Amino acid sequence: MGIVLGASQYGKAESRVVRIYRDGPEHDIRDLNVSTSLRGDFDAAHLTGDQSKVLPTDTQKNTAYAYAKEHGAGEIEDYALTLARHFVADVAPVRSARVDVDEYRWDRIAVDGAGHPHAFVRAGQEIRTASAVVEDGEGGPSTWVLSGLRDLVVLKSTGSEFRGFLRDRYTTLAETADRVLATSVTARWRYGAARGDNPQNRPAIGPAGDWGAVYTSVRRILLARFAGVHSLALQQTLWEMGRAALAAHPEIAEIRLSAPNKHHFLVDLAPFGLENPGEVFHADDRPYGLIQCAVQRDDAPPAGPAWESAAAFA
Amino acid sequence: MGIVLGASQYGKAESRVVRIYRDGPEHDIRDLNVSTSLRGDFDAAHLTGDQSKVLPTDTQKNTAYAYAKEHGAGEIEDYALTLARHFVADVAPVRSARVDVDEYRWDRIAVDGAGHPHAFVRAGQEIRTASAVVEDGEGGPSTWVLSGLRDLVVLKSTGSEFRGFLRDRYTTLAETADRVLATSVTARWRYGAARGDNPQNRPAIGPAGDWGAVYTSVRRILLARFAGVHSLALQQTLWEMGRAALAAHPEIAEIRLSAPNKHHFLVDLAPFGLENPGEVFHADDRPYGLIQCAVQRDDAPPAGPAWESAAAFA
Amino acid sequence: MGIVLGASQYGKAESRVVRIYRDGPEHDIRDLNVSTSLRGDFDAAHLTGDQSKVLPTDTQKNTAYAYAKEHGAGEIEDYALTLARHFVADVAPVRSARVDVDEYRWDRIAVDGAGHPHAFVRAGQEIRTASAVVEDGEGGPSTWVLSGLRDLVVLKSTGSEFRGFLRDRYTTLAETADRVLATSVTARWRYGAARGDNPQNRPAIGPAGDWGAVYTSVRRILLARFAGVHSLALQQTLWEMGRAALAAHPEIAEIRLSAPNKHHFLVDLAPFGLENPGEVFHADDRPYGLIQCAVQRDDAPPAGPAWESAAAFA
Amino acid sequence: MGIVLGASQYGKAESRVVRIYRDGPEHDIRDLNVSTSLRGDFDAAHLTGDQSKVLPTDTQKNTAYAYAKEHGAGEIEDYALTLARHFVADVAPVRSARVDVDEYRWDRIAVDGAGHPHAFVRAGQEIRTASAVVEDGEGGPSTWVLSGLRDLVVLKSTGSEFRGFLRDRYTTLAETADRVLATSVTARWRYGAARGDNPQNRPAIGPAGDWGAVYTSVRRILLARFAGVHSLALQQTLWEMGRAALAAHPEIAEIRLSAPNKHHFLVDLAPFGLENPGEVFHADDRPYGLIQCAVQRDDAPPAGPAWESAAAFA
Repeated sequence: MGIVLGASQYGKAESRVVRIYRDGPEHDIRDLNVSTSLRGDFDAAHLTGDQSKVLPTDTQKNTAYAYAKEHGAGEIEDYALTLARHFVADVAPVRSARVDVDEYRWDRIAVDGAGHPHAFVRAGQEIRTASAVVEDGEGGPSTWVLSGLRDLVVLKSTGSEFRGFLRDRYTTLAETADRVLATSVTARWRYGAARGDNPQNRPAIGPAGDWGAVYTSVRRILLARFAGVHSLALQQTLWEMGRAALAAHPEIAEIRLSAPNKHHFLVDLAPFGLENPGEVFHADDRPYGLIQCAVQRDDAPPAGPAWESAAAFA
Repeated sequence: MGIVLGASQYGKAESRVVRIYRDGPEHDIRDLNVSTSLRGDFDAAHLTGDQSKVLPTDTQKNTAYAYAKEHGAGEIEDYALTLARHFVADVAPVRSARVDVDEYRWDRIAVDGAGHPHAFVRAGQEIRTASAVVEDGEGGPSTWVLSGLRDLVVLKSTGSEFRGFLRDRYTTLAETADRVLATSVTARWRYGAARGDNPQNRPAIGPAGDWGAVYTSVRRILLARFAGVHSLALQQTLWEMGRAALAAHPEIAEIRLSAPNKHHFLVDLAPFGLENPGEVFHADDRPYGLIQCAVQRDDAPPAGPAWESAAAFA
Repeated sequence: MGIVLGASQYGKAESRVVRIYRDGPEHDIRDLNVSTSLRGDFDAAHLTGDQSKVLPTDTQKNTAYAYAKEHGAGEIEDYALTLARHFVADVAPVRSARVDVDEYRWDRIAVDGAGHPHAFVRAGQEIRTASAVVEDGEGGPSTWVLSGLRDLVVLKSTGSEFRGFLRDRYTTLAETADRVLATSVTARWRYGAARGDNPQNRPAIGPAGDWGAVYTSVRRILLARFAGVHSLALQQTLWEMGRAALAAHPEIAEIRLSAPNKHHFLVDLAPFGLENPGEVFHADDRPYGLIQCAVQRDDAPPAGPAWESAAAFA
Repeated sequence: MGIVLGASQYGKAESRVVRIYRDGPEHDIRDLNVSTSLRGDFDAAHLTGDQSKVLPTDTQKNTAYAYAKEHGAGEIEDYALTLARHFVADVAPVRSARVDVDEYRWDRIAVDGAGHPHAFVRAGQEIRTASAVVEDGEGGPSTWVLSGLRDLVVLKSTGSEFRGFLRDRYTTLAETADRVLATSVTARWRYGAARGDNPQNRPAIGPAGDWGAVYTSVRRILLARFAGVHSLALQQTLWEMGRAALAAHPEIAEIRLSAPNKHHFLVDLAPFGLENPGEVFHADDRPYGLIQCAVQRDDAPPAGPAWESAAAFA
């Protein structure tokens, strides 16, 4: 019975790359958290400590900073793609590369009604995300691109019920026709193959520069559906959010949504002689419900390693 | 040589009070984190375990929720004041009460260009704060009110230098005429006595309902000065921010600013044959500079216990 | 082109279950963080909002607390298994259930050299983990059990080098024959099929009550190998740690290790006229290397859904 | 009505200094988080941006690292004192300096029953702290030294009651003769003047090298009293803990304790036909009680700026 090396990957996590564009009087800023992860012919590094095929994680960090200078002008999806393609194309032992980018957004500070040319204020706690995975293969590299967001915190003060659920001997929850529904949305969407790995055959929405337009649109759709759907359960809300995003965006093959149900408990004010018709709540920390679903096209191409982030390894 | 009880205080920290206003078709939301802390005749609780004068922290929590129903409609400063006055006036052993409130702001979700009546999205990571301290005394209670904000993250991509500083044998820092200046501002301002404890003698800005107007104005001024001042040091920037706030708001007696200098280090790209004229930076986590100052009127009334938060106790 | 529901799961995350055993003069404590996640016939909840097959997450929480009373006496692996089996066996729509448990360990407070019978102090920041997955199938349920630990922070002040690595145009790192090696180990090991789903055919180590003995042994082995292996790279250290665990424990089919390389940078003290022969370091926060690998038997049974935690969903 | 600069201070926070002692075959490690804060003649830096009297925070960081080489061998109290004395004595504009040090403790990894000479594992989540404040004055500098700990998490499964408390119209809490008492202790003790600023007149316990002995003793006393005192309230427990520390250590003038009451709520299992005689609890996150008290000698010297940490500024 032999003991063997199984899956392995390595990289540099959380390089905090800040790129300032100062070509004109108005500066721009890109504030990124970049993680790279490589797979390939690295068994010797584990088995014998031979590092001759190992590109140091320090080099991966350097590359992220250097590429921010040379290739940082576009959307984070393009930056991630360019980096991932570089590792696979230019570093021989690398068979596949994953680049995950978080972007923190900044607004211009408003002074006398106009945006300041070089002073900024952080725009919300929501984070825009992108991931690119490039994997070498027989007929050339395959590519997957994920765009997304997380920490989008939303709440409905009515228009949410939870009734008619399954009961067993451990069920004590009362049914409710009107509750507060609050969550922090994580959403990630995977583009169809045409967009990522085939520059000659882009989907109808146009050139790669449109990643940002898709992001803005999907974000708007997710918010609008969260607001507009009369919720019978968070499951149904998530489905409707994801379905609307796919209906509007043919270039998206799949969207995954993960949403903690941040419970707001109605406080019993009766002991103090007060009524509480849905007005005063305790926002609880833990435990929380956690609802997760994927919405996809029935002809979506295979996801391959798209969802295999470093966080999922162990 | 005797061993005696010194300063003591106790309370309930971080009650997560959410108040929904649903009187009309448009709901409103107040999302608060409330901490109460009492001082007074509580020595027996320590010395002998006699609880007969101790109002349980559970009761303090209940009171915060009940008052959110009865007195929650105004600004957080009024809510804090009302709670603090209650503890001092209505609970015999309490000699002074401090109520600290954090408010998380929510925006309406935009749907078809209009704000949704009952669906909200968290508005940024910035937190509005208020503290009220009421202390019983010979001639009636004294009152202090602090308003403030924290986690206001700002950055200037130019317009900041750091030169001409003191050098000793441990100094290696190069002077710079152009750097990135980034910080996360904590600001708290203390109102003059008239505003808080003397309803008959309010300052010129008007009734208590104006707390929010002052908050909005001070926030705007702090941002505008951060943007507008050509910075010779973070110290000077903070002074100018605070001074402008006091100049515009006679009702403010003192403002305190605490600002970590979130260092952005220029990355050396020369080894890769690339120039880096202020374009690519590494945003570092630790260590950070920490600059703190108070700006006040020369006739400011005594601060009393205004700045003695629970965080400062030990 | 149809839009369909893809993978989905839901559950209650982070129920903070504390179980006190007080049958004799010496109390014992189990301090747990329990997360449950169910898959099954839940499409209607998404597609139409029909909750009739949905066991509320509140019920899952109740079940976790009730089972802590009835079945909480054993190891966390048994508690997780019992809960997971219950959901699959007793709740009709559930096709598979995953239960993840974190355990916080407590030591008895030492008083006059003896452990106190009912006063405890938290034992370190390291967390013991267990996961059980039960999945219904044709021939009865399949079962997977993972045990593990995380936040095991270790450091070697010598006995670690990093040399002979691949260089490209972005490589600036100097080779080193002696560095500080520090990491925070996450390890999870998967038991062979016999242990989990086949009570009649337990592996040689004995009854289920031995989970704790395996945990203690694997932890000891991981630490000893981290200490004892002269490290040529973190990759090699992890492999040797995992290999030793499998060599000693035939009941383990696979172990996965995830280890951030917590960089300690030698500080340049030359400007101050001081030498620094490996004595003064700056411990950096970000970025960090992240090294991950699996070590497994060549005849390991399929992992199935064992590694598909909720954190990995999106 | 003039606007003036009030209190101000600045420094470098959270330098992560790691010092390895490798003089013999057995290495030792000191793992520190060092923050420095200076007060003095710095008004011009605020008012006009003139930095000529400002020692950069970068220099303060350098000094912390350099002193770790030159003066790092002793206890953290001595290291903090030496640093603080340096800033006041050697940097002309500095009138007072505060140095706060957190120490993370490491144990040797046990291999075959013996401690490994250069491999370590982090010892618990508890942090040892020290602060030194040196303030220039007419007759030479005054000195204050604080030692302490935080994140010492403790729990009693019985031996704690809470009864006979004050009730008002908002009180719903039931009295209890047996509850779980859990907290995370922050303790800081202030030495009498003789110890810190007067090497010629050290207290009876001996030379400065005894800081560690006092730390170990106070920690042991705090734990023993937490365990041994039948608790009528957390207030009483804290008093007894502090009193015992002072009774055993004449060199301590004052000890301050801050302790969140980490509530453990008995879970109602009756709906499931189960009794719950103090066995199954929900450990809640927020809100929490927060109990704080000082225990001091009636002839304690003035505390001066000892308790004015940067965290307490605004």
